[in-house]
Amino acid sequence: MLDLQEMRKEIDVIDDQIVKLFEKRMSIAEDVAKFKIETQKPVFDRTREQEKLETLGQKTHSAFNCCGVQELYQHIMSISRKRQYQLLQESAPPETGEFRVVETLPKDKVSVVFQGVEGAYSHAAMHAFFGENIQSYHVDTWKDAMEEIKKGNAFYAVLPIENSTAGIVQDNYDLLNEYNHVIAGEQIIRCRHVLMGVPGATLEDIQSVYSHPQALMQCREFLDSHETWHCREFSNTAAAAKKVAKDGDKTQAAIASPYAAEYFGLVPLATGIYSNPGNSTRFIIVTKEKIYCKDAKKISVSYELPHESGSLYNSLSHFIYNGLNMTKIESRPIAERNWEYRFFVDFEGNLSDSAVQNALRGLKAEAQNLRVHGNY
Amino acid sequence: MLDLQEMRKEIDVIDDQIVKLFEKRMSIAEDVAKFKIETQKPVFDRTREQEKLETLGQKTHSAFNCCGVQELYQHIMSISRKRQYQLLQESAPPETGEFRVVETLPKDKVSVVFQGVEGAYSHAAMHAFFGENIQSYHVDTWKDAMEEIKKGNAFYAVLPIENSTAGIVQDNYDLLNEYNHVIAGEQIIRCRHVLMGVPGATLEDIQSVYSHPQALMQCREFLDSHETWHCREFSNTAAAAKKVAKDGDKTQAAIASPYAAEYFGLVPLATGIYSNPGNSTRFIIVTKEKIYCKDAKKISVSYELPHESGSLYNSLSHFIYNGLNMTKIESRPIAERNWEYRFFVDFEGNLSDSAVQNALRGLKAEAQNLRVHGNY
Repeated sequence: MLDLQEMRKEIDVIDDQIVKLFEKRMSIAEDVAKFKIETQKPVFDRTREQEKLETLGQKTHSAFNCCGVQELYQHIMSISRKRQYQLLQESAPPETGEFRVVETLPKDKVSVVFQGVEGAYSHAAMHAFFGENIQSYHVDTWKDAMEEIKKGNAFYAVLPIENSTAGIVQDNYDLLNEYNHVIAGEQIIRCRHVLMGVPGATLEDIQSVYSHPQALMQCREFLDSHETWHCREFSNTAAAAKKVAKDGDKTQAAIASPYAAEYFGLVPLATGIYSNPGNSTRFIIVTKEKIYCKDAKKISVSYELPHESGSLYNSLSHFIYNGLNMTKIESRPIAERNWEYRFFVDFEGNLSDSAVQNALRGLKAEAQNLRVHGNY
Repeated sequence: MLDLQEMRKEIDVIDDQIVKLFEKRMSIAEDVAKFKIETQKPVFDRTREQEKLETLGQKTHSAFNCCGVQELYQHIMSISRKRQYQLLQESAPPETGEFRVVETLPKDKVSVVFQGVEGAYSHAAMHAFFGENIQSYHVDTWKDAMEEIKKGNAFYAVLPIENSTAGIVQDNYDLLNEYNHVIAGEQIIRCRHVLMGVPGATLEDIQSVYSHPQALMQCREFLDSHETWHCREFSNTAAAAKKVAKDGDKTQAAIASPYAAEYFGLVPLATGIYSNPGNSTRFIIVTKEKIYCKDAKKISVSYELPHESGSLYNSLSHFIYNGLNMTKIESRPIAERNWEYRFFVDFEGNLSDSAVQNALRGLKAEAQNLRVHGNY
């Protein structure tokens, strides 16, 4: 056996040859692409690729190499297709679907709907994103908020999509799929729960604490250190603050956002009561206008996949081969198709980038029902 | 320009050469592996691979080819590693962690805990999986069920993990991570809701319908066709059936499983009232014993990933390159590490298969905190 140094030298020689052959192959693949563009043939020909993989596998001398060569060629052909989509791109107008680019999002005096009540975290997220110069109102459910922008009663809706501790809000992923709206922005809000009471109340006065069950749970350690307090569950944190303000009773406290304290004229009695100080919720700003900012940095798409070995992996290759960084992948069941899924992928980029357009072109050709949910 | 036929012939010639070089490279890679095994060096050397990619990229003549060659070599090196893990495997005892293989799962006279009440879908799932010859009892929460098997009070727990319409049960993914238990089996139950009343009641008698909000929603169309009925929400479907049976009032009906009707002595008043007839829930059978059946076909694992471009994609390559079919991927936030995720992957295979062991060996080396949640 050779020593490691010699073996690596031999490998280097082989690699030089492979690189040369790869470049030669890509150059011919470009000619094939030009031919396909002229004759309007599709870039992706599943049958031909399958046959090619069969043939190449048969040329190898071990089961492992057969498998290895076939895997290798799936990638070589995939890289070729990426280049072919690029050439197609250059010969065609940029494809951004129905989307149009804007300098900045309209924010001044727009009407915005959110779910919940004033003082809720969505209310805070809305003002953090838009400032104060808007017309806002609230509805009972997330679906109602989607309906409001569909009907044109509001230009934007603000919806929670993910909490850093609790995970995604599944219902809002489903609503993104159900409605033909787009995500135009996002806003992350720290959930800095505080204990609040009526003006003049002190910690010693408190007998009952009102809040959402999740918030009570998140402040468990703090609450456990006050054994005599009774905890009462409420439908949301802002509603709990509202109740305490309305009752005007010094023995009552609520756990809610500092924003809710301010809104309902309550005073903080204890802060930093939260067990995970970084806990945050990400809200999305949704509209029915198909717009994106020219400096938008993140794209959300979704698509369905057939039940095939490798189909998820292959679909993700469109992001990787175009140098796009995926930041998130989620799946949701497809209604009425049991145990089949729609995948939601977030990745970095702008709809005007050619790498993004190549990836979307490839995905559109190879996955089912691709949707671009927004660029923000 | 050549015509398509000629271009393809040229590509075929190049491909023959690439296949030969690939096989030659793999043969040297095997020698490298043997050397590494003898000298106990790790198979994966990230620094060396990065340098190699740099060098190869510089040998190309366009930005696209630079990227393409680097992508190609990530795969070639990944395939080499797979082969090296295989050789390592052959020279070492099979690695199945703490798991031990059993002929069949112990099912006779075992004690099983489920969450909810008798007549619930989990109760039905339990009997579908174990038959009747068991000792079973129920607890209030999923976490309680996990505690019962941890304490040794029950051998198995039955937990819902996914509904074909509503998606995954996020809390139970988190419990799988929190507890050091394993999944030993799974059971899918069709959610065939029926409308049931006390014996002697007819559809005409009904004035109130009790059920879980999700079940009421899933039967919305049917309920809407009976305008005079009042719908009342209950904490679960079986509890609703129990209430109707207890009250013995002909004007009351519940929507629950046929199993609950039988259990509480109620009679079906209407069937097929469900809008998605295929709707099913998948339950997992959990135990603290690290066992798997010799004919188990599905493996659940989870791991954490660094925030790196391509890290998700690369981690999935371990399944693909070992010919393993992924059936599911989910992510859950990592507690206390905001916006970082643990990925849960289900794939087909048995812990005794060498392909599975190669994949696990590779994942263990390249991802963080790999856990095998079970083989069933």
